[in-house]
Amino acid sequence: MFEQHRETLEKALSAIADRGYWSAYPESPSPRVYGEGAAERGKEAFESYLGKPFPIEQPGTGAWIGGERSPYGIDLGVTYPEPVIDDLIAAARSALPAWRDAGPERRALTCVEIVHRVNQRSFELANAVQHTTGQAFVMAFQAGGPHAQDRALEAIAYGYAAMTASAAEARWEKPAKGDPLVMNKRFTVVPKGVALVIGCNTFPTWNAYPGLFASLVTGNPVIVKPHPRAVLPLAITVQIAREVLAEAGFDPALVSLAVEEGRGLAKTLATHPDVRVVDFTGSTEFGDWLEQNARQALVHTEKAGVNTIVLDSTGSWRGMLGNLAFSLSLYSGQMCTAPQNILVPAGGIETDEGHKSFDEVAAGLAAAVSRLLGDDAKAVELTGAIVNPDVLARVDAAPSLGEVVLESRAIKHPSFPDATVRTPVIVRVDPGKEEVFGREHFGPIAFLVPTASTQESLDVLRRTITARGALTAAAYSTSDDVLDQAERAALEAGVNLSCNLTGGVFVNQSAAFSDYHGTGANPAATASLTDPGYVAGRFHVVQSRRPA
Amino acid sequence: MFEQHRETLEKALSAIADRGYWSAYPESPSPRVYGEGAAERGKEAFESYLGKPFPIEQPGTGAWIGGERSPYGIDLGVTYPEPVIDDLIAAARSALPAWRDAGPERRALTCVEIVHRVNQRSFELANAVQHTTGQAFVMAFQAGGPHAQDRALEAIAYGYAAMTASAAEARWEKPAKGDPLVMNKRFTVVPKGVALVIGCNTFPTWNAYPGLFASLVTGNPVIVKPHPRAVLPLAITVQIAREVLAEAGFDPALVSLAVEEGRGLAKTLATHPDVRVVDFTGSTEFGDWLEQNARQALVHTEKAGVNTIVLDSTGSWRGMLGNLAFSLSLYSGQMCTAPQNILVPAGGIETDEGHKSFDEVAAGLAAAVSRLLGDDAKAVELTGAIVNPDVLARVDAAPSLGEVVLESRAIKHPSFPDATVRTPVIVRVDPGKEEVFGREHFGPIAFLVPTASTQESLDVLRRTITARGALTAAAYSTSDDVLDQAERAALEAGVNLSCNLTGGVFVNQSAAFSDYHGTGANPAATASLTDPGYVAGRFHVVQSRRPA
Repeated sequence: MFEQHRETLEKALSAIADRGYWSAYPESPSPRVYGEGAAERGKEAFESYLGKPFPIEQPGTGAWIGGERSPYGIDLGVTYPEPVIDDLIAAARSALPAWRDAGPERRALTCVEIVHRVNQRSFELANAVQHTTGQAFVMAFQAGGPHAQDRALEAIAYGYAAMTASAAEARWEKPAKGDPLVMNKRFTVVPKGVALVIGCNTFPTWNAYPGLFASLVTGNPVIVKPHPRAVLPLAITVQIAREVLAEAGFDPALVSLAVEEGRGLAKTLATHPDVRVVDFTGSTEFGDWLEQNARQALVHTEKAGVNTIVLDSTGSWRGMLGNLAFSLSLYSGQMCTAPQNILVPAGGIETDEGHKSFDEVAAGLAAAVSRLLGDDAKAVELTGAIVNPDVLARVDAAPSLGEVVLESRAIKHPSFPDATVRTPVIVRVDPGKEEVFGREHFGPIAFLVPTASTQESLDVLRRTITARGALTAAAYSTSDDVLDQAERAALEAGVNLSCNLTGGVFVNQSAAFSDYHGTGANPAATASLTDPGYVAGRFHVVQSRRPA
Repeated sequence: MFEQHRETLEKALSAIADRGYWSAYPESPSPRVYGEGAAERGKEAFESYLGKPFPIEQPGTGAWIGGERSPYGIDLGVTYPEPVIDDLIAAARSALPAWRDAGPERRALTCVEIVHRVNQRSFELANAVQHTTGQAFVMAFQAGGPHAQDRALEAIAYGYAAMTASAAEARWEKPAKGDPLVMNKRFTVVPKGVALVIGCNTFPTWNAYPGLFASLVTGNPVIVKPHPRAVLPLAITVQIAREVLAEAGFDPALVSLAVEEGRGLAKTLATHPDVRVVDFTGSTEFGDWLEQNARQALVHTEKAGVNTIVLDSTGSWRGMLGNLAFSLSLYSGQMCTAPQNILVPAGGIETDEGHKSFDEVAAGLAAAVSRLLGDDAKAVELTGAIVNPDVLARVDAAPSLGEVVLESRAIKHPSFPDATVRTPVIVRVDPGKEEVFGREHFGPIAFLVPTASTQESLDVLRRTITARGALTAAAYSTSDDVLDQAERAALEAGVNLSCNLTGGVFVNQSAAFSDYHGTGANPAATASLTDPGYVAGRFHVVQSRRPA
């Protein structure tokens, strides 16, 4: 079954080995690609969910709950089954043996079919992502749809590669006095147990799919616990997964949804003795709590960090400013990969347009952001809306942290009058105030920090990222020597580095199959999306041997 | 450098993929293989250490300490540097960058050279292993020498495979409007940090080499902390590693020795903030402590378990008894893989020599052990000596646990009058006494448990191993259906199973490159020696990208 996906799986396996450009799912939301009327059908499908119980049937259903409100100012009114935990876990457990026995290949092809059907519903998902995260539509489509699907396929490929790196059967023939010793051996992949994926508010699909599919392909039933503000995209995903699994003859309880209204469900699930794998994206506080308390489980977390840009010099003043302005503005900086700390020598930098003082750099960046977001109607398609009141409160408080270089501006969304839209605030912070810029301020908040020199900037990068982690770092320099030093500092801090981005590649974007998202080598994450360390612990190999 | 080992590395990579028979280091201690006079030179080398400071120079040396006493009754009198912890760790840290920068291939070839030189000193190591563990000489040679070296090479191969599964460099070219986006990317393996290997008393080399070489090949400097009773084999190993590393132009501080007289050094090292990987073999109590407390590190443990044999029926009554008797007697059951619980239907079993009642099975096994160990001079070459007073105390206490089927016998060693030698004790224990057979009694102690049926035996296997873990399990049956059920029970318990061993393959022996040692799927171990899960977490990949 699903033999048609063998080629996709093989291409994905090549892609994770080569790490050049490849993508399974087209990112363009155009009718040429996704078909005439696909956008309209997706919107209708999304709207059909509003104000109703979500169409999912799973064992262990208690009340129907839900309170999602779009950052664009619309109450979604969708309700979901509140789980009876022990029933949900029992159903997952009883679904496990048949899924384990299906073996790596059948599981992988079934997982690809799930992703394939998710892809077909990209417009529906884009609407759901837009109205739970506040992302602008095109971003919600790309990051919530094909990019997330590529990351899912990448995780499937890594899991499959890890499970099949060694033979599943072997004949062992050891020379001996007289007849050789001969044994037939069988090696079976066994999953760790029930897996839990804890979704986040800002990227419900992109950040949940790697864990979901890495666990599922390696044989673990998965309980998906979305963020209470971003349930719908994962509910749709779970629904699709259950549908495919049932069609393939498996128990749909292999993937189930656990929704909560209040707080505490994630803790209860994550520390349940039968839950053996936990994937989490979110705050450092809760990530650390999980690592400390979910001791019966393999825990992978992606947490906060202090993403850092080092400006030393540039061969493209305008390109650099434009690129940085875009990175700060995209989804109002509400990306775990968005830059926060921009370190600039107090004496300024050399550029293709001459020497620029620190103040000129600050003014140039402020102007670039203002220019980029000058037209309200266009601006909101870049910034989207502010995801929740916590982010808004941080934006409002940011000016008190230093000297304001660029004020945040409230924008009236032309289509959604109740949407909360804010442009980035840029604040100059003294290098001595590491207690300010040395921790994450999630949202459209950037700090410009004057340093004694690029050397000091690299020291700050190394020190703050070693202490607090980061998912991204970037450096701008016309000197190969400085770039090499930046690479070395990034290696030591264990952070992925982008150099001299002045065009259409941005520090906060990573491409599946090529760019690693996070490293595991600094406190911002325990592993990369996706690398061997992310998949290997999710399964074990149990062997059986008999004389031939 | 060490290009000559490329072929060995490639063969090892094939072997871990195929999992058929392969061995890099010959197990026969014969002059034909290891050269005329090798045995004598090895013995002399061992004797040259006795009563002296061990010839190793490393930074952070305090006093010279040591109190090893051979289970054969000889004080070794070797002293070793007591480490100044912070100096030792600082030296390891400062050695890291050059080793990281050397890259996977150069590290792997250097590691193979270390193992190659260890192999050349197998006789010296065999003497050291014999007189620290109590193993008989031939076993000390094989398990402490070539078998341990094969496990080392296997870990190197797994580490190398994991590090090189993806490209180290890539050109990424994404189609775009106008010119494509083109980036050059570099992916660098970075180690987690300083690694610690905590050795055990019974298999100082075999159990330490996988962790040592898995950490080293992936770029981590390694501190080796041997068991205080089994220092010499690891001191020799560390000395060889340092010699090779220095010759290759690296800082020998990449591998260092940390010896203690008292207790507590392992705790101090394992919880040091700079120690990021810990490998441990030993008690469940301390393994659990490490997992709970060494939170800054990736911790791999191999702990106690209840290895289980299910007897259902056999086509070779004599072969089965002989095989089991050997497994119980080898190194006096002081193997983490030795059987402990033998589950037999109370109504007896069918065999090629007719029906055998439970009592006949018990008597048959007792007779087989007595026959195997009937000649004292031959017996000691199988049993070796009792490794420490704790094991001896358990043997002496075992008769109180049930009804004695076979008494342990003290044997006078013909060559070592002060050696403590004991044959196995076999005790019949009621199936209701799971508090007795449901935990590990390390040493030459086996329990015969009458069960209601083979079904109940499999239930007991599943239940006890799920609760307490096991490294091995075995089943004997002439029914394919029963063997399939046993396989399923073993899968569910997450334990490696051997079926119908009646010849020269024993449940307590595992072959490198083919058999997995442990699974990670039950409480006896966190991972297998060696599987992808054992190596993957020891390193991360950090990427750097620049516009092309």
